[in-house]
Amino acid sequence: MRDMLGREEVITVEKALEFVLKNLSVVFPSDIKLNIEHSCTRILSCDMYSPENLPQFARSTVDGFAVNSSDTFGASDGLPAYLNIAGEVLMGAMPGFELKKGITAKIATGGMLPEGADAVVMIEHAQTIDEEMVEIMKPAAPGENVIQAGEDIKKGALVLKRGHMLRPQDTGALAGLGITEVYVYEKPKVSIISTGDEIIPADKAVNPGQVRDINSFNLTGLISEAGGEPVKRGIFGDEYSVIKKIVEESLKDSAMVLITGGSSVGTKDMTAKIINDVGSPGVLFHGVSIKPGKPLIGGVISNTPVFGLPGHPAAITVCFEEFIKPVLKKLTGITENRFRGRKLIVTAKMAKNISSSSGREDHIRVALEERGDELWATPILGKSGLITTLVKADGIVVIPLRKLGVEQGEVVEVRLF
Amino acid sequence: MRDMLGREEVITVEKALEFVLKNLSVVFPSDIKLNIEHSCTRILSCDMYSPENLPQFARSTVDGFAVNSSDTFGASDGLPAYLNIAGEVLMGAMPGFELKKGITAKIATGGMLPEGADAVVMIEHAQTIDEEMVEIMKPAAPGENVIQAGEDIKKGALVLKRGHMLRPQDTGALAGLGITEVYVYEKPKVSIISTGDEIIPADKAVNPGQVRDINSFNLTGLISEAGGEPVKRGIFGDEYSVIKKIVEESLKDSAMVLITGGSSVGTKDMTAKIINDVGSPGVLFHGVSIKPGKPLIGGVISNTPVFGLPGHPAAITVCFEEFIKPVLKKLTGITENRFRGRKLIVTAKMAKNISSSSGREDHIRVALEERGDELWATPILGKSGLITTLVKADGIVVIPLRKLGVEQGEVVEVRLF
Repeated sequence: MRDMLGREEVITVEKALEFVLKNLSVVFPSDIKLNIEHSCTRILSCDMYSPENLPQFARSTVDGFAVNSSDTFGASDGLPAYLNIAGEVLMGAMPGFELKKGITAKIATGGMLPEGADAVVMIEHAQTIDEEMVEIMKPAAPGENVIQAGEDIKKGALVLKRGHMLRPQDTGALAGLGITEVYVYEKPKVSIISTGDEIIPADKAVNPGQVRDINSFNLTGLISEAGGEPVKRGIFGDEYSVIKKIVEESLKDSAMVLITGGSSVGTKDMTAKIINDVGSPGVLFHGVSIKPGKPLIGGVISNTPVFGLPGHPAAITVCFEEFIKPVLKKLTGITENRFRGRKLIVTAKMAKNISSSSGREDHIRVALEERGDELWATPILGKSGLITTLVKADGIVVIPLRKLGVEQGEVVEVRLF
Repeated sequence: MRDMLGREEVITVEKALEFVLKNLSVVFPSDIKLNIEHSCTRILSCDMYSPENLPQFARSTVDGFAVNSSDTFGASDGLPAYLNIAGEVLMGAMPGFELKKGITAKIATGGMLPEGADAVVMIEHAQTIDEEMVEIMKPAAPGENVIQAGEDIKKGALVLKRGHMLRPQDTGALAGLGITEVYVYEKPKVSIISTGDEIIPADKAVNPGQVRDINSFNLTGLISEAGGEPVKRGIFGDEYSVIKKIVEESLKDSAMVLITGGSSVGTKDMTAKIINDVGSPGVLFHGVSIKPGKPLIGGVISNTPVFGLPGHPAAITVCFEEFIKPVLKKLTGITENRFRGRKLIVTAKMAKNISSSSGREDHIRVALEERGDELWATPILGKSGLITTLVKADGIVVIPLRKLGVEQGEVVEVRLF
């Protein structure tokens, strides 16, 4: 899109994201089998139904006496019910007796209810007279202090849905059902292509004019945290044929391709041209109303999203959170637990006045500080080319498109890194 | 502690945690060397100082013309400054020329400023006349559009402190300085001892009276998420000598020991006795005013925290979040980024009235639901022995000690799982 002066027009964050998502059809990743011990944060690739009841028998939830509840009706401190003790339910074993009318049995938490029992009286409400008899001082309702067979999970019930991100308690539930392996989606591979004649590997000494590759490390961490598998393709000079070739190669086995660098006019145009030349629909937007991150290029090539990221470290982080992460989440196959994995937000008071231009979303990095009971956010000022602005910051405050700034003392939401 | 009736007295959550932390002296874990690519979420074991300036030379932050700023003073659209073009700064290379008065050079974002230049005029404010001359329409202040040598990080500066949990951007900063390996603390080993005559491994078929081990799976996930290394010691019958022996063995190489099960009166007393018999100070509290989780036992043996956890799945999760995680965090060596790793909290309206007893902290599991723009929290009712109450829940609402419940429509904070 160009405006009336022929300049590339930038679009809003929402619009840009919508463009990309609209041009992607959902393809679920292939799946792999994993032991449940290694499945936390992974996404289930099929619905999980219970093969059996959990528990498989009625269990006591307290320490006490298993009873036929009707034997206890009307019992009180003044007029207790006297019951004969048949024995004790041993943990982990089937009781070797049945409770007839007027008979009870000692039972511990988790013990299996004997045949004939339908409730448990807590030990606090019973008084043992001798080995063979106990006074029950309180009536028990049918089912009281009992977990019924299948009360936790019924045989055949849908326990976890396809697309659910597994949490510790979910693996516990699967273990309880005897399911020790699950099918989960493979992590979507995200290729990172670093470009720039001035960029050298992190383990090399710097000559005048050169800088080390910072962004592929930041991106590797961000991609892993978001559930993707980062694949570094290497560092490439600003040459059309070289970058085009590595983009084509990366597309063969990647769910997403990220090209970093190329934020100067010439190379930015080159990245856009390559995205358009390699396949369709190609570039979908070129520039967004966000700061830092304005020069972001977004496109799709044969159903694979491709982003051209500006080279500034702070822009990388902001663009990732706003554009790349939501697209990457889609590619992981997650459709459940939408509340998990949200960005952690705290409210704080702004420690300084901050101005912002209307017409762009300003992402201000801030450091948090506790002053008494209050949290205060101090803006980390500095060019978006500085990696330290991100290192010193605890999070980001977003100043929306139409807001002209934030005043000192104003309450803001801080999205924590 | 026993009350006047000889009953074990329960203490508050804060008091219980304070007891344990007071009885632990800080011992930092040993450290290991890791490649920065695998260091995210790990804790730095030493302060990191910069070995060099970042960047090592002044760089342009825009595409434009490198100038001696004094050559541009007073320049305007009507009265531009005319400068001779010495050439173009190539990316990644030292400029092959020096800028004398009245001389300029083309430069791209990230390019190295030539000797004699102290500012860059953006391409938008320059008009090239021919290969050799350009009109500058706007004055540049000294340092404008330039990142100075060492402006991001100065040689010798403290970049990251010992105890800092590494984030993606931190690994980027280290890469930028040529630091590709870091020393981080080893993860504290947390032994999980499952006890109970009725407990069988997750991959075994269930006989009447038996249940599979759910809790060690839930705990494995929780420990990993909190930065510890879970070590399953196995499932053991309720026998004093057997459990005592595995506790002693576990203490040899663990930073923390968790004993699950043993929530019935007899076995609870056994767990407490073992903690007291194995070493001092032994049991520090026995019962807390929290639901679920009341039977929790906390102790320290020779500076290693030992917890006896009730067997109910929901109690495991609540006790972990409230007691074990804060202690485990201490053991990881983390002292920085206190804001990262906080529990994610959302506010929601309670969908139903919930009552609570005064004198205990009630932890209500809730499912979240979006109704229009609002988030509503529906309590998942059910015994704390049911694993599904955790599986169906998105988070937990805490009703404090002295509050008698929450009314329908009341705004609550939900701590997400």
